[in-house]
This record gives sequence, structure tokens and C-alpha cells, in this order.
Amino acid sequence: MDNTKKVFRAIDADGMLTGSPDLRAYLTGFASSFGFVYTDAQESIFFTDPRYAEAAKSALKNQFIAVEIAKSEDAVLDYIRSKKVRRLAVPFSRVTLPQEEKLRKLHLKTVDSDPAFRAAMSVKSAEELACVRRASEIAEQAYASLLGELKEGMTENEVAALLEYKMRLAGAQDRSFETIAAFGRNSSVPHHAPGQDKLQRGTPVLLDFGCRFGGYCSDITRTFLFGKSDDADFAAAYEAVYDAHRAAADAITSGMTGQAADAIARESLASRGLDKFFTHSLGHGIGVNIHEAPTLGPNSKDVLQDNMVFSIEPGVYFEGKFGIRIEDSVTLSGGTVVSFMHSDKKLTVL
Amino acid sequence: MDNTKKVFRAIDADGMLTGSPDLRAYLTGFASSFGFVYTDAQESIFFTDPRYAEAAKSALKNQFIAVEIAKSEDAVLDYIRSKKVRRLAVPFSRVTLPQEEKLRKLHLKTVDSDPAFRAAMSVKSAEELACVRRASEIAEQAYASLLGELKEGMTENEVAALLEYKMRLAGAQDRSFETIAAFGRNSSVPHHAPGQDKLQRGTPVLLDFGCRFGGYCSDITRTFLFGKSDDADFAAAYEAVYDAHRAAADAITSGMTGQAADAIARESLASRGLDKFFTHSLGHGIGVNIHEAPTLGPNSKDVLQDNMVFSIEPGVYFEGKFGIRIEDSVTLSGGTVVSFMHSDKKLTVL
Repeated sequence: MDNTKKVFRAIDADGMLTGSPDLRAYLTGFASSFGFVYTDAQESIFFTDPRYAEAAKSALKNQFIAVEIAKSEDAVLDYIRSKKVRRLAVPFSRVTLPQEEKLRKLHLKTVDSDPAFRAAMSVKSAEELACVRRASEIAEQAYASLLGELKEGMTENEVAALLEYKMRLAGAQDRSFETIAAFGRNSSVPHHAPGQDKLQRGTPVLLDFGCRFGGYCSDITRTFLFGKSDDADFAAAYEAVYDAHRAAADAITSGMTGQAADAIARESLASRGLDKFFTHSLGHGIGVNIHEAPTLGPNSKDVLQDNMVFSIEPGVYFEGKFGIRIEDSVTLSGGTVVSFMHSDKKLTVL
Repeated sequence: MDNTKKVFRAIDADGMLTGSPDLRAYLTGFASSFGFVYTDAQESIFFTDPRYAEAAKSALKNQFIAVEIAKSEDAVLDYIRSKKVRRLAVPFSRVTLPQEEKLRKLHLKTVDSDPAFRAAMSVKSAEELACVRRASEIAEQAYASLLGELKEGMTENEVAALLEYKMRLAGAQDRSFETIAAFGRNSSVPHHAPGQDKLQRGTPVLLDFGCRFGGYCSDITRTFLFGKSDDADFAAAYEAVYDAHRAAADAITSGMTGQAADAIARESLASRGLDKFFTHSLGHGIGVNIHEAPTLGPNSKDVLQDNMVFSIEPGVYFEGKFGIRIEDSVTLSGGTVVSFMHSDKKLTVL
């Protein structure tokens, strides 16, 4: 998997410089807090500082990317100056004003590498799909184990921490984002931060979580009832979100825009008068980042393609009452949606 | 604690716009993945999207910061246009090229807010110090509990995951960074990613970890032996790092530069011929970010002041053999170093 060549070939430039952690991780498969990748037609070099040098050399020893030590951005720019690059590709959306000033002093033409990264990263290779698949399996395995251990009186923070711990024990490198655990009316806050509220019988629980395997993320949300509830509004809203999820998963095809994909779920909810409670987009791409291209949302012109990986996550939120979200990580294969998730999406009552 | 006023007063501008997650969290005390804070002499407004609106309103209800919904950066810039701001402060080091282009269309003068943020954030209030203190206590409580549960055959990944889980159960909001657990020769990689290597008797263990409380971080590293070892080189190197740590903690004073502080530990190690194995800086500021101002390093002109919070973390690394790092989070009070940490820094043999 030579992602440096994949990206560089799509750009009209003599050289390419990449500093952002996520783009670097995509190019090298190696995660670090400081580093730059320089690529041209002849070579790819990963510049990093002494803290990472030993690990980087070991991780990249069988690859085409050389590892060099550089203690600062300036040292990397000196190298580029020595190469006499005329057109240098950098990701404009990640270049800051002080970096722009330094680049200006190199007296070269900068070219935006963002579109090439976006295109290359959104369509996954077989290896990348395998990593997302494994990250999805691990997340669901941990979730199944967690359900058997939930007890009245546990706090949101405890449940979130336990789920993250279980994902690690099941083989995850890490969580893919801060786990959301929301009990009762807290579930009406789409991005609730887990707190000290305690699990009570007869209330909804929303868990939004995922993990990282081989550098790639999974993302899943389940909403269920901890004990029986007579709340008919909840049951009806759950059914509506479930139907919206199924409608989207059934009808989304390769070649469709992100806007059209989003509209399927939105119209399904509208048929029950619930679309105004669906306050976010239907989904987002998933890869080395938990949020990346494509976007499935009301204004997205992104065209969905085979081997893209994204979330399908319709939800409705009733302030002060409850919220429901049902999310799978999926891919497009042979033109249609294939989910990485296997856990039940029907309403579960524990 | 009105951090918006603290920062805005230090800047010569009519308005201030802040988009970075960490700077926003510093201004509002509220963490979110999307949002902007606009501040001028009359008002402070936190613009966020519908996913966070309910939680933000609840978190900020007793504060001077109003919460408004904005689905995009453009909506926020429209508001600024309506205010007829002439000099707008933005943190240059966080402004990207596409953002700069949007700001240019507002036809106003931009002023750099970075120095004001850096100065305000590096000197902590009593409330901020209390949060770091609590985050430090929780980290050490979890560490003490972990030591009692370490067993031969546990993997680095399991140990890191268990320590993070214990910090959460002990009251942490979250870890403050990805926990480093390195066994044996892996400890020679300063930023080792925990893997599947198993804990063996008679080998060194390096744990670098911390957690977050009230939005503020703690950071601590301990290196110990899991069972007795006859390695005299390890014992001698440990003593050297321990002495370097103590020398720095004893001699660092308010008014000293980061460079002078770093030199104390570096010279202590040089007296044993070990300074060339000390491949990183002595320390970094700690706050809402795990790394912020001041820097304690060979090139740092930062002047240390009372109520700053930073790490003291000398270390030596012998490639393929072992590494040792001893780190406390500390503050300066009455001119001298006061550590937040109480766990033993002497060589521990489990």
C-alpha cells in the first residue's frame, strides 16, 4: 500500500510536503505528534524527531519511505530548498499563517494537495477495508460483553470507561473517539459528555463508540432501553429512526450524491413528521480520521463510490426527554451498501 | 473565571474571534468539536452547532457568555461583518489558508491573538491549579491501584488500558493523552505505542500517563522494575535520572528562563556522561492542553513565573536496551517548585 505515490501522482507538482498528523499517518501508517513527509518522483522521506526515530525506523523498515531525523520544521524546509523544488504541494486547509510565511521565503509556487488527499483517502484499498472491518468487529464484541455487565447505579462515565477498556482488551489499539454514554434525557444531547448520572431502570441508553485497528476507525451508535418502559412516544420514535436507517441502507447506491443519500433518511422521518428533530447530517466518511470525506448531508455534492467507508446515522432528539440514534459503519460494494456491523438494530430491552 | 476578558484586554483590537478547540475550551470551559467565540468590549458569544447547543446553554447558563447557534463558519463571519469590526484578533498560528481568504473578504485588519493566549493560559488561576491538583491526585491513585494488579504476561496494551480505566473510575473526565506503557527495551523509545509485548520478571516498565479533571490535564511518568534485576547499568542510569530530576526541582526558580531550567538537568546528566542520551526537552507547560507554554528546553526564552504549571521530565534512552524517564507535573509558588505528585520517585522494585 503505497499511499505517497497514490496521492503524489494525482497532483501537478515537483514535490509534496505533508505535516498534518492524520495525513502523515495515512501516508506512512505510522502515528506521531511531530513529523513531515516529503515526496517527489524519486523519493519519500519521513522526517521526525528523535523521540520517534527508533520506532519509525522499525515500523517503516520494509517500505519505500526513508526515515530522517529533523528537530524542527525549519530543518525540513532547508531540505526542500536544497532540492530546488519549483511547485510544492501542501494541504492548504492545514497550512497556518506562520507556515505560509515560511513557505513564502522558499520562493516557490504552492499547489493545494487537499483534493488529492480527499479523493485518495475516501476510497479504501482492500487492506484498509480489512482494518475497518476488524475495528468494527472489536467494537461490537466489546459492546456485547458490556450489555451483560450493565447494572443499575453505574454512572455514564463508568459505562463509557468500561466500554473503552473492553475494546482495548478485545484487541483495539485505541478508541477512535471519546465514547458517548448518555442515560435518559441526556440522550437528547447528540454529543453528550458522559457524567455522573446513574443508570436507572426503564430509561433509554445511547452509546456512540468505536475503536481503531491498524490505524483505521470504526463508529457505531446503539440506543436501547435498560428495563421495560411504557413510553409510547419513545417506541414510536425508535421505530421511525429504525425505518429511516433501513430506508437509507437499502436505497443508497454508488453514484449517488451525499445530498441524495441524506434525503432518503430525512424524507423517511418526514413521513412521520419527525424530520425537524433530525438535527445533524446522515453520515460522514471514516478512515484514519473518524470524520473525513465523503459527507452525507443536506448540502453535500460528494459522489458516493464503491469502497468508500461512511456512517449511516439518522437520529431524533427531543430536548429534555430523550434522543435516539442508530448508526452503522458501512461501505459500498458492487454499488450497494454493505454494513460492517452485525449487532441488532431492532429495539433492545435489557 | 472570565478568561475571555483576561485575553481580550491584553489585545489592541475591537473584536476577537477564536475557533480552535483548545482556545475555545479555555475561554468557555466547554469542550466541543465545532464552535467559535466572538468577544468585544460589550459581549462574548459562543457560536456552536445544534449538536452542542443544549449542552452549551446548560454549561454556560451562569456565565457572561451567550450561546448562539451557527451551523457554519460563514454564519459567524456574517455576524462579525454586521458588527463593523475594524481590527479583529485571531490566533495566527491556528488560522489556515482557506480561513485567511474568508477573513480577507471582511475587509478588516487582523491582529494576532496568539501571544495574549499564550501569556494568559500559561499562568494559572487558583481554580485552574485546583483542577490540575485533582487531576494529579486521580492519576496517582490509579497508578497505586495498578501496581497492585500487575501480573506476568499482561501486555503493554492491557496495562495502558487498565490504567486509563482506573483513572476514569477514580473520577477523571478522561485521560489527558494516550497512555504510554513500555516494557523492557521498548522503554528506550520515548513515545512508544503500547503493543502486544508481555510483562516479564526482572525488566523495566515505563508508564507515562495523566488524566483530565475540570478540563485540565495532569502528566506523570514513572519507570520501575517488575521484579529484581542485576543490571548495574540500569541502576546507575536510574540514579542519574533521579538526581537530574531532583537537581532541577530544587534549583528551578521563578524568573529563570526555560533554557536555564533545562540546563540544570542536562548538566547533572553530563556529570555522569549521560547527557547525550537525554534526547528531548526537560519539560512543557500543562493546562487545557497537555503541551503548551512555557517550554523548558535548550532553546527556550520563556521566563518561568509563579503559578505556571509544567512538567519536569529528564530521561535517558539506550536504543535496544532500556529507557528511563521520571516526570512530575509541578507549579511555581513563592518562587520555587512545588510538585503535584506524591508517589515515590526512588527506584521501585515490584
